[in-house]
Amino acid sequence: MRQAQSQLQSQAFFAWMETIQADMEKTLDACLPSSTELPSRLHQAMRYAVLGGGKRVRPLLVFAAGDLFDAKPALLAACAAALEMIHVYSLVHDDMPCMDDDALRRGKPTVHVQYDEATALLVGDALQAQAFLTLSSNLSEGDANAVDGLAMLRVLAQAAGSGGMCGGQAIDLDSVGVQLSQQELERMHRLKTGALLRASVLLGAMSGKNLSTIEIIALDAYADAIGLAFQVVDDVLDVTADSTMLGKTAGKDAQNNKPTYVSILGLEPSIVLAEKLRQDAHQALMPFGNKAQRLRELADFVVQRKA
Amino acid sequence: MRQAQSQLQSQAFFAWMETIQADMEKTLDACLPSSTELPSRLHQAMRYAVLGGGKRVRPLLVFAAGDLFDAKPALLAACAAALEMIHVYSLVHDDMPCMDDDALRRGKPTVHVQYDEATALLVGDALQAQAFLTLSSNLSEGDANAVDGLAMLRVLAQAAGSGGMCGGQAIDLDSVGVQLSQQELERMHRLKTGALLRASVLLGAMSGKNLSTIEIIALDAYADAIGLAFQVVDDVLDVTADSTMLGKTAGKDAQNNKPTYVSILGLEPSIVLAEKLRQDAHQALMPFGNKAQRLRELADFVVQRKA
Repeated sequence: MRQAQSQLQSQAFFAWMETIQADMEKTLDACLPSSTELPSRLHQAMRYAVLGGGKRVRPLLVFAAGDLFDAKPALLAACAAALEMIHVYSLVHDDMPCMDDDALRRGKPTVHVQYDEATALLVGDALQAQAFLTLSSNLSEGDANAVDGLAMLRVLAQAAGSGGMCGGQAIDLDSVGVQLSQQELERMHRLKTGALLRASVLLGAMSGKNLSTIEIIALDAYADAIGLAFQVVDDVLDVTADSTMLGKTAGKDAQNNKPTYVSILGLEPSIVLAEKLRQDAHQALMPFGNKAQRLRELADFVVQRKA
Repeated sequence: MRQAQSQLQSQAFFAWMETIQADMEKTLDACLPSSTELPSRLHQAMRYAVLGGGKRVRPLLVFAAGDLFDAKPALLAACAAALEMIHVYSLVHDDMPCMDDDALRRGKPTVHVQYDEATALLVGDALQAQAFLTLSSNLSEGDANAVDGLAMLRVLAQAAGSGGMCGGQAIDLDSVGVQLSQQELERMHRLKTGALLRASVLLGAMSGKNLSTIEIIALDAYADAIGLAFQVVDDVLDVTADSTMLGKTAGKDAQNNKPTYVSILGLEPSIVLAEKLRQDAHQALMPFGNKAQRLRELADFVVQRKA
């Protein structure tokens, strides 16, 4: 009986997820400059990088967190698009020869392979600006009482910069060939991927109302748990899945001599850790009751995904 | 008599300029993460790129435009710092091997030479985020009636992205070895450097009050004229000045087979054009009377500078 109920929930969740993913494709299409607009090659390349792929984990988190306080879908869509643009720009730059030098991303040639390095550099730069333009254009001073738009932009900027994602990538660079402790590895991931996942949860919730300190603490605990879980599972999949399933080159971390949870803890303990983090995420959502259903299911999805 | 008066004005202007430049150094120092903060190598490199050099043309424009409507100095400083960070990030990326591959900037080794390519990439990325963080952190919802903070962030994002600076760089890339008309060259520079100069003027003025359409049109005309003048003079200096004076590699444009005003119009007609643009800039400022004194002097400075 319980099994059957869980199955039903899963189906509703996957339907919700597919709806968000399909809607996001339309939103991103609308938020990106047309490829007929000059400079058309840059705009084509931006669209190539962003559209037609990805799990859209950050948008899913935005919409799931938006449920908590009944946020308006249009503002959630803008937050989700902005976060996805920041995420994609980081992938485009990360794939470049001077960084990870990767040729495959989301099952397609990476931007510098499909276009060229200079274009990949500009695509990333322009996507970051487009993210801030998208979010700021969908906020208005009129909303001042309900939603603090400037605070939301600060969350995005903080998560993207040297105190967030870029900082994590810098630590990652410095860590190649270095023996990291689990604690050091966690600090790196908290910035590299965790900061943007946290911003996704916060921006979704902030689209509904200004958050209390207690609400921020609870959402931070949730985001922290799924952020680390996401990375642990990524590291597990890097050794257990193949490139076709991942849509990117598998086994790349070991090949690059990068520290991973699997290299530090071993495979089985990493799987156990991911499950523990999934439970931590559920725990953190206790104060939000039923409204946190999608956030709970996303925690399950992050840990149980196969790609 | 007129000559002497003009000399006196110049001295006051240069004193003002040096004060702004010195203040900006302190502001930028305070707006950048400390180099002891982790990741310290990234923060060191960000500070290396931003501090200790540059004419600070964008900050000067911000403060000069701030005079028009008696804007608060603290907000002007934040706008100026944000614009300078965007400008510097574009230089860091532009100097990279996949773009202009330049070794010298502001009299120092470029970031990828002093550090490495991956660090230069992240320095640029992190500086862009830091720019948005700096501006959004110095705006508050409480200012909603006097100053439209979200509109200011939109101006910055628009100027930085594919419809502005990044778009101009993309056109620049596509133009290497191509015979451009003067009109095409102008379109490229309107985006590549003009967009950020325009944003400087607008953000300075918007720090004082919400602008009317007529005020925006006048400021756009001014910014357009000095933006083009700036580029014409850059092209002239690239052939008439030496590397030591410029603090960057001279003669680089011709070497890279890049279209310039000098290559299209010739040297003398370029000098004549710069003077005409200086006069256009003065003309555009007519409605603002005495309050536009610094903006007028900046137009003169942009055209008459020797480096």
